[in-house]
Amino acid sequence: MRERIPVGVLGATGTVGQRFVSLLEDHPWFRVVAVAASSRSAGKPYWEASRWLQSRPLPSSVADLVVKEVGEPIEAPLVFSALSADVAGPVEEEMARDGRLVISNAGSHRMAPDVPLVIPEVNGDHLALLERQGWGKGGIVTNPNCSTIGIALALKPLLDAFGLRSFHAVTLQAVSGAGIPGVSSLEILDNVIPFIGGEEEKIEREAGKILGRLGSGGIQRAELRVSAQCNRVPVLDGHLASVSVELGEGSAPERDEIARALSEFRGVAQGLGLPSAPRHPIHVLTGEADPQPRRHRDLDGGMAVSVGRLRRCPILGWRFVLLSHNTVRGAAGGAILCGELAVARGHVAGVDASWPSAS
Amino acid sequence: MRERIPVGVLGATGTVGQRFVSLLEDHPWFRVVAVAASSRSAGKPYWEASRWLQSRPLPSSVADLVVKEVGEPIEAPLVFSALSADVAGPVEEEMARDGRLVISNAGSHRMAPDVPLVIPEVNGDHLALLERQGWGKGGIVTNPNCSTIGIALALKPLLDAFGLRSFHAVTLQAVSGAGIPGVSSLEILDNVIPFIGGEEEKIEREAGKILGRLGSGGIQRAELRVSAQCNRVPVLDGHLASVSVELGEGSAPERDEIARALSEFRGVAQGLGLPSAPRHPIHVLTGEADPQPRRHRDLDGGMAVSVGRLRRCPILGWRFVLLSHNTVRGAAGGAILCGELAVARGHVAGVDASWPSAS
Amino acid sequence: MRERIPVGVLGATGTVGQRFVSLLEDHPWFRVVAVAASSRSAGKPYWEASRWLQSRPLPSSVADLVVKEVGEPIEAPLVFSALSADVAGPVEEEMARDGRLVISNAGSHRMAPDVPLVIPEVNGDHLALLERQGWGKGGIVTNPNCSTIGIALALKPLLDAFGLRSFHAVTLQAVSGAGIPGVSSLEILDNVIPFIGGEEEKIEREAGKILGRLGSGGIQRAELRVSAQCNRVPVLDGHLASVSVELGEGSAPERDEIARALSEFRGVAQGLGLPSAPRHPIHVLTGEADPQPRRHRDLDGGMAVSVGRLRRCPILGWRFVLLSHNTVRGAAGGAILCGELAVARGHVAGVDASWPSAS
Amino acid sequence: MRERIPVGVLGATGTVGQRFVSLLEDHPWFRVVAVAASSRSAGKPYWEASRWLQSRPLPSSVADLVVKEVGEPIEAPLVFSALSADVAGPVEEEMARDGRLVISNAGSHRMAPDVPLVIPEVNGDHLALLERQGWGKGGIVTNPNCSTIGIALALKPLLDAFGLRSFHAVTLQAVSGAGIPGVSSLEILDNVIPFIGGEEEKIEREAGKILGRLGSGGIQRAELRVSAQCNRVPVLDGHLASVSVELGEGSAPERDEIARALSEFRGVAQGLGLPSAPRHPIHVLTGEADPQPRRHRDLDGGMAVSVGRLRRCPILGWRFVLLSHNTVRGAAGGAILCGELAVARGHVAGVDASWPSAS
Repeated sequence: MRERIPVGVLGATGTVGQRFVSLLEDHPWFRVVAVAASSRSAGKPYWEASRWLQSRPLPSSVADLVVKEVGEPIEAPLVFSALSADVAGPVEEEMARDGRLVISNAGSHRMAPDVPLVIPEVNGDHLALLERQGWGKGGIVTNPNCSTIGIALALKPLLDAFGLRSFHAVTLQAVSGAGIPGVSSLEILDNVIPFIGGEEEKIEREAGKILGRLGSGGIQRAELRVSAQCNRVPVLDGHLASVSVELGEGSAPERDEIARALSEFRGVAQGLGLPSAPRHPIHVLTGEADPQPRRHRDLDGGMAVSVGRLRRCPILGWRFVLLSHNTVRGAAGGAILCGELAVARGHVAGVDASWPSAS
Repeated sequence: MRERIPVGVLGATGTVGQRFVSLLEDHPWFRVVAVAASSRSAGKPYWEASRWLQSRPLPSSVADLVVKEVGEPIEAPLVFSALSADVAGPVEEEMARDGRLVISNAGSHRMAPDVPLVIPEVNGDHLALLERQGWGKGGIVTNPNCSTIGIALALKPLLDAFGLRSFHAVTLQAVSGAGIPGVSSLEILDNVIPFIGGEEEKIEREAGKILGRLGSGGIQRAELRVSAQCNRVPVLDGHLASVSVELGEGSAPERDEIARALSEFRGVAQGLGLPSAPRHPIHVLTGEADPQPRRHRDLDGGMAVSVGRLRRCPILGWRFVLLSHNTVRGAAGGAILCGELAVARGHVAGVDASWPSAS
Repeated sequence: MRERIPVGVLGATGTVGQRFVSLLEDHPWFRVVAVAASSRSAGKPYWEASRWLQSRPLPSSVADLVVKEVGEPIEAPLVFSALSADVAGPVEEEMARDGRLVISNAGSHRMAPDVPLVIPEVNGDHLALLERQGWGKGGIVTNPNCSTIGIALALKPLLDAFGLRSFHAVTLQAVSGAGIPGVSSLEILDNVIPFIGGEEEKIEREAGKILGRLGSGGIQRAELRVSAQCNRVPVLDGHLASVSVELGEGSAPERDEIARALSEFRGVAQGLGLPSAPRHPIHVLTGEADPQPRRHRDLDGGMAVSVGRLRRCPILGWRFVLLSHNTVRGAAGGAILCGELAVARGHVAGVDASWPSAS
Repeated sequence: MRERIPVGVLGATGTVGQRFVSLLEDHPWFRVVAVAASSRSAGKPYWEASRWLQSRPLPSSVADLVVKEVGEPIEAPLVFSALSADVAGPVEEEMARDGRLVISNAGSHRMAPDVPLVIPEVNGDHLALLERQGWGKGGIVTNPNCSTIGIALALKPLLDAFGLRSFHAVTLQAVSGAGIPGVSSLEILDNVIPFIGGEEEKIEREAGKILGRLGSGGIQRAELRVSAQCNRVPVLDGHLASVSVELGEGSAPERDEIARALSEFRGVAQGLGLPSAPRHPIHVLTGEADPQPRRHRDLDGGMAVSVGRLRRCPILGWRFVLLSHNTVRGAAGGAILCGELAVARGHVAGVDASWPSAS
């Protein structure tokens, strides 16, 4: 067996950073060799700097790593970033300039024209934008917003099969999306907060890019009308959404055709057998009250999205309930899957694209 | 001061029944003289039969009333019904035949053509349908579904000022709507249940009737396309909704005009100064994350609805967040307000319509 | 009617500070004329600086006060302090030196020998310690820890009637005790945190002082063995405790005698008819599952404590469940009651002790 | 590999029954061949009768079993019972008479003198009582109350090493202990219920039997003073307890000795390497706020208990926080471990005691 590929994690002590560390334990391709965080954590062993909050115990291989300060060089060709948007921008560019491939969960570069915004099953081909970034061996790949990922993943097969003119999504989002301290218990117990700063704009902005086509002039956004309304609910993990869609003009599928398009959908991640790829990207559930965050967020290790209650919408045509795990598929897990695809596509410096299949 | 009007409460031991009893304590016009419940409770004093769950203490004037069995005669001209839909139908008809005016919170008669489905501020004039019921002095008035009330109340001024072609509502509903035992804690803690049996149909069905016009041939439903998606969230009281609306063709109001139409809205309940009428039926809140169930459900004693985050919707035109207290305005309080209007309109047998103003 | 006594609130924007402002609205004796907070809030109008979180609306009389920076002089003879312990010490001393009577909710001065630690019904006479402070007209009075108040109040009648050798308390404390942001929702949803920094020590330390006797040499602590174990639970307001007590040697009361001692207990606050005094300091509840935070925390406006499930303890003798509202009786409300007693006892500079009765 | 031992599950559709089915999937020794429930479920396939609520998907091997009515013969030498106490008594006796070994989670037979009440690590030798039951090849073994199991397991090494005169436990129990519908969300959200019917008596009664010695005259109860106070908190799984203990007279261990006695404790379940035995029955945690239900309930698959905050108690000597998973170790998992021990000890009819080691 070959030596696993060394990777670094930026912003490693936060909620998403901890998910990265947890999911990368026992990863068949990757091995965490460096963790970086703010100056407050730098210099401490990771077990001390992170107040570990995951239910899986802290991996011993990472526990004793000394935390670097964000900005220090990382000796790894692949770097996962869980930095907050206010610091991610220049740090990630510096990493790219230094020859690292950065897979970022931050919002900073998502809308930059030459930065791919990737969900492997949906638009893995957008990775080709890396060629245009001009960082040499390095580059930046971004992972969409946690709510957008699930929605775009479920819309892709509908777009392909029936066309898609608009979608209307009302989200019920878990508190883990806000990190620690994030949402105060005094604000959310026995309550809903019908506002998440910047979230609606992200969904409305990112969906068109993800579902767009890569042409010679770059990404051509999908023409879509999008309305997103976001609520924070007292749930730990799992973003739920009530989604209505208007399919392409002239398209009039039956319920079964739509369900089949969703459940049979497979992407490049499945085709290549990437280690973090869910076997079924979209589970179509038939229980009358499904999906539910606590009961279905962990399907396929948290990497699948669930769709239920598919039925006609008197206004837009069809509607359904959508669930995705916001810190797995919607953050760390989704970014790791992007990293796997980047390896398989030969975008990681010094790593042979045939690596995985040879392992 | 005159003697207060004697009233009865059917289904008095449940969640909504307890709200009726609680809200009717110290009511300036009404006095609870009879409480009825299932055979399991009948014959016991009310304090024992109801496991009192309200935060206000059980009113001493009702505590010692012996619970009647539902179906026994009630010696009161006005009867509030919190019966469940599976038993309400024939019982309420029997009461009406017996000369009582029944204000019902049950779903049984809501869609009957000659039964008014009333929100006093919205369609108080529909009470005139009582003339067509043929029960003599008695009659049946219904209170809409708890989610529908808040939505229809907020839509009425929009319909009047700008016209209304469709609305799309995704609700986040409190557990008190399901009563006791209702939603098990094992189902809802750290969870959302994206389904409430029959609820979406009720909203889609009732809104058109409430917003309709009473003509010589009865109620003419408003022509509206309605899409409702309902979720149960771990909140005690207060139904929140993310609402998008399509206004009348050619109507292009500015944000301020819409906000003003909402906040300046008054109805017959305010005009007559009915005791349970909120001073402002609709509060337009300006906080970026308002309204919130725990913080705003009790505005105007739980009888007002709150609207916030009024902004454009890329698909339907306008959208906003709506909150109403589901067991006050959406159930017991709303029904009591209907009862007050019925008194003021002379629909309660043996009670002079001038009663209130003379008090 | 006389002009109400001007008072100031330090730390006015936090959770307890907001409670002070809310409870002082419409107070018959006091009128808030100054609010102070950290430099971040100073200079802003109070409505903007406080993100108002109480369910009662922000009092208009305070909304427009410009927030002072903590440390600036306060033009009021009586000042309530909701400062955090890390800044309260020198600030409160400066206020006292300046001739103000400070009623402090902070821990800073509680254990100082010449500072009274007061629950009016329990040890109102300890206010006489003010004479020894040497601040001239000013002085410092402290309010005990939020958990200690309820416990000491319930133990006082037992100590008086039967003697008390030890008590063992396990608390289940609400999140409002930690303020905002306080306890993160990601830590407490579907969870209990069995630790609250410093809390157990406070209960173990303060109870003996409060229940002690004031003699010529100062306070003589009550001889008590105390064991406290503190848990944080996902409850908004109301600290519950499972308490076991060992009564005085040779004392063998029946259950009824204990219940009577509790329910008939009255203190100087009731005797003087202070405006914030609950009519019954201790409610003895008979429901088999009472008291409960959500259902009983607001009894007597949140100023009464509730005791239930009084029964024998196989180890210590007797045990019961205790509830008190942590931000009302256990913080702002308790401090206001201390302020009222201080006025009535003539400890507030320039305010005639006969003021209240003359009002 | 040998054929796995067929087992049945009584009360298979409830919360604990579902845990049995979930934990027995892929069990190396056992295979579920029969499920029984009330007449309401009988005759339906299990997938339909159980509204499956576990987060692991319903095992396909059980999904299609037709549910038997409780009381019908079960063709399996070993039967796990999750029946409620009101029906378990005669049904389990009938099974025993029929030659089955019943491992019961119900309270019905726990205190019967010839019925072992077993925690394998604590008193596995009590299984020898089966010889005295007189059911021939069949018999009844009971699993203690969910709260008692964790407490007794943690106390056993203390009793062995230092003696134990009394313990005082205040529990904070999860809602899953009450099953479905169990605790209504309307009762427990933003609340604690300081009462669980019969629970305190069970802890006080069962501990002495479990920690007792089996002699020629049967079980001799441990001499212990026990005080238990039970609270229901809004937590899904995991019973937490604040425990104080009085060790044996003259015993004065240091903190480290106690911690070592706990963490090094091993029982017969570990010695025999039973498949469900946790490697460490007791985890001693050092985090200042540990253990916590959500973060530690799943240690060792939910079969270990966690102890934290070990420190002196001013009244009883020592105190600590204890956590155990109430539906795994405290119910289904604990019973399965008893079943494994019974097999290894040759108590299951027709199953060779050497079976497991030969597998």
